[in-house]
Amino acid sequence: MSSMRRGLTASEALRAVLEEATALPFERVPIAVAAGRVLGESILSARTLPPADCSAMDGYAARAADLEGASAGSPRALDVLFEVAAGASAAGSIGSGQAARIFTGAPMPPGADVIVRQEETTREGARVLVRVALPAGQDVRRAGEDIRAGDQILAAGSPISAAEIGLLASLGRSQVAVHQRPRVAILSGGDELVEIDGDPAGGRIVSSNSYSLAAQCREAGAEPIYLGIARDTPAELEAVLRRGLHCDVIMSSAGVSVGDHDYVRPVLEKLGCTLLFWGVDMRPGHPLVFGRFGETGPLVFGLPGNPVSAMVTFEQFVRPVLRRQLGFTRLFRPTLQATLVEPLRKSGGRLHFVRVRLERRGGELLASSTGTQSSGVLRSMSLAQGLLIFPAEATELRAGEKATVQVLDESFLAADEPGY
Amino acid sequence: MSSMRRGLTASEALRAVLEEATALPFERVPIAVAAGRVLGESILSARTLPPADCSAMDGYAARAADLEGASAGSPRALDVLFEVAAGASAAGSIGSGQAARIFTGAPMPPGADVIVRQEETTREGARVLVRVALPAGQDVRRAGEDIRAGDQILAAGSPISAAEIGLLASLGRSQVAVHQRPRVAILSGGDELVEIDGDPAGGRIVSSNSYSLAAQCREAGAEPIYLGIARDTPAELEAVLRRGLHCDVIMSSAGVSVGDHDYVRPVLEKLGCTLLFWGVDMRPGHPLVFGRFGETGPLVFGLPGNPVSAMVTFEQFVRPVLRRQLGFTRLFRPTLQATLVEPLRKSGGRLHFVRVRLERRGGELLASSTGTQSSGVLRSMSLAQGLLIFPAEATELRAGEKATVQVLDESFLAADEPGY
Repeated sequence: MSSMRRGLTASEALRAVLEEATALPFERVPIAVAAGRVLGESILSARTLPPADCSAMDGYAARAADLEGASAGSPRALDVLFEVAAGASAAGSIGSGQAARIFTGAPMPPGADVIVRQEETTREGARVLVRVALPAGQDVRRAGEDIRAGDQILAAGSPISAAEIGLLASLGRSQVAVHQRPRVAILSGGDELVEIDGDPAGGRIVSSNSYSLAAQCREAGAEPIYLGIARDTPAELEAVLRRGLHCDVIMSSAGVSVGDHDYVRPVLEKLGCTLLFWGVDMRPGHPLVFGRFGETGPLVFGLPGNPVSAMVTFEQFVRPVLRRQLGFTRLFRPTLQATLVEPLRKSGGRLHFVRVRLERRGGELLASSTGTQSSGVLRSMSLAQGLLIFPAEATELRAGEKATVQVLDESFLAADEPGY
Repeated sequence: MSSMRRGLTASEALRAVLEEATALPFERVPIAVAAGRVLGESILSARTLPPADCSAMDGYAARAADLEGASAGSPRALDVLFEVAAGASAAGSIGSGQAARIFTGAPMPPGADVIVRQEETTREGARVLVRVALPAGQDVRRAGEDIRAGDQILAAGSPISAAEIGLLASLGRSQVAVHQRPRVAILSGGDELVEIDGDPAGGRIVSSNSYSLAAQCREAGAEPIYLGIARDTPAELEAVLRRGLHCDVIMSSAGVSVGDHDYVRPVLEKLGCTLLFWGVDMRPGHPLVFGRFGETGPLVFGLPGNPVSAMVTFEQFVRPVLRRQLGFTRLFRPTLQATLVEPLRKSGGRLHFVRVRLERRGGELLASSTGTQSSGVLRSMSLAQGLLIFPAEATELRAGEKATVQVLDESFLAADEPGY
């Protein structure tokens, strides 16, 4: 506990939390649920795809030499010997003056070296008239053109989405090794809190942070485990914390800050927690506490109790840790440069994250405050598409000035038009 | 069937599919699983938050009039009568020369009009010395400052994410009305296909489109229902289609195209399907078929069988339909302007979607082709971060020229740095 640092900058705090975070071990999961995870193995193909030379089109397999000089005015007549369907094998081989009816994906019959597309032909009973000359290889997909047995198809560390799932399926892989999802134990502390179906009489408030934080965990790709409300006694705090010690991260909102009650530090120490820092020069979110249980135990974040502060500190510190635990290397929200619609002022010394609405107007991105920046007002977080970074040393951002905005609302990035 | 259109442009096809798509009816879901959905009701608050004037800080509740002229050199001594914790009620009221110990969120005792932060005080037994003069209302959060009973908190049509879930919880709402998730029946057709654990001997290939398309559905927020492979007979096609008729969308990859087999159209007609168009002037993806079953039955997309074509046509036409069914209004992937690293050429007449890698270099976004644009090569889709729009009438895009790119890989938008 003696090594606990105080009053870090946001950058120092971020560095400190990321130093403690590493990608979690692997697990094997069915490919159907692998989206959003990061590959924990390199994928080599056991198969060659296509497995044999095959047709890229519906039409006729023929010999290029037979088609020399063919045209609409002077078509070549070929005898159609048999038909090859995709998934079937050719019933025989093709000689000079001969062809086979063939479908997309079907293997080339021996002797054929070109595919004539259906629309360039006229069928006449057992013969087909071809109206074009074609170079050998036209519309033939070569064996191994996509993938050769032994090729590395995907590298360890690749994020998995639909294309990778399709690729894995095409190789016959039904399971794949991915980094495990972090499990995040969530608790809230305080005698003033009630569960969502509890009685809010007497000024009690719903433990709403548990819900917003759980949703933030899920959005980040982690698994939230809600432990419930710890009443303000050392015994209850210890009992609730113990239920989270097998998780990868423990996250409390209010009640577990070092300053909240005199018994919090002793309870954490008794359970083997080392506190690494307390307090970050930022607003909202100043009273953040960070530590870890033992060498291999969970990381612990004591988030502020104010709803906005809890969400903002999650965004800044917990989310990048969870993304790294999942195996990702790009850990942060998209950032954009936006033009301020109105001036912003503050005193120097603390970085502010200003909740802003974003609006595109004439190719420019405009940012305006959502109004009150009181950290109790969750509605401002709902109205915000982003957090504007008002640097620690700055005291004024003028209207018309550009500033960096972290985009929280990914649906803001979605487009109104397809681009064509 | 007579009204089926042929050879639409991509824009015409998009307009045609969106004309058939409307937001699905509501369902009530627990707020914990409401993320990614769209609100189907307006949310009015039944509560006032904070329910009473309360403290924004840990410290002492006092009367501003008592603190006039207070300073470090001339502190004011106040008698501390009682303590008010968050969630408790005040044990009494405060008179002149008196104060109450108070914690963040605790209700203001009657008579008090200001909060003195703990760090501005020194406690001396039953008295507290206050070193600052403060205006009335300082660090007091007013009843209803966040939300008043009857206020509209969220409008119908709002996308739901963590902040909205926290807001709903704070209002005591455990369930909320959202638009239903579209159910998408997926089938593939063709005797050459095997399931992932099937025998690929004899040139058979895994029905990998089912996996990539199911993943695309999930990513879009829809629920995929995989019906399996329909063998190439009218009876089997009909049987498989019937298992999907209760869904919102039926999506086939290969085998259900109108041109594939002569029996496909009669089977679709027998089941009440009206085909609305067939063929789009785009590449990949030309042989797309679109229709709907009856007035209220599922929309049906016959996607091309090539893995890349299937994914690209899903992106262009199915995904916007699913987003609209979910209740979203911004239906499209983010688009960016990127600079071409190398020239691209094609013949005129068809819009091309070129798979490109994207790279940020010195504030500029660079796009380069992933290599082969063969629509059989799913690896190119895995390597691509975006689809570059090569307009129908254009035949060349020069190196250094800017073009619009649809960003498929949302993790490409994630940042390497937090922005501060």
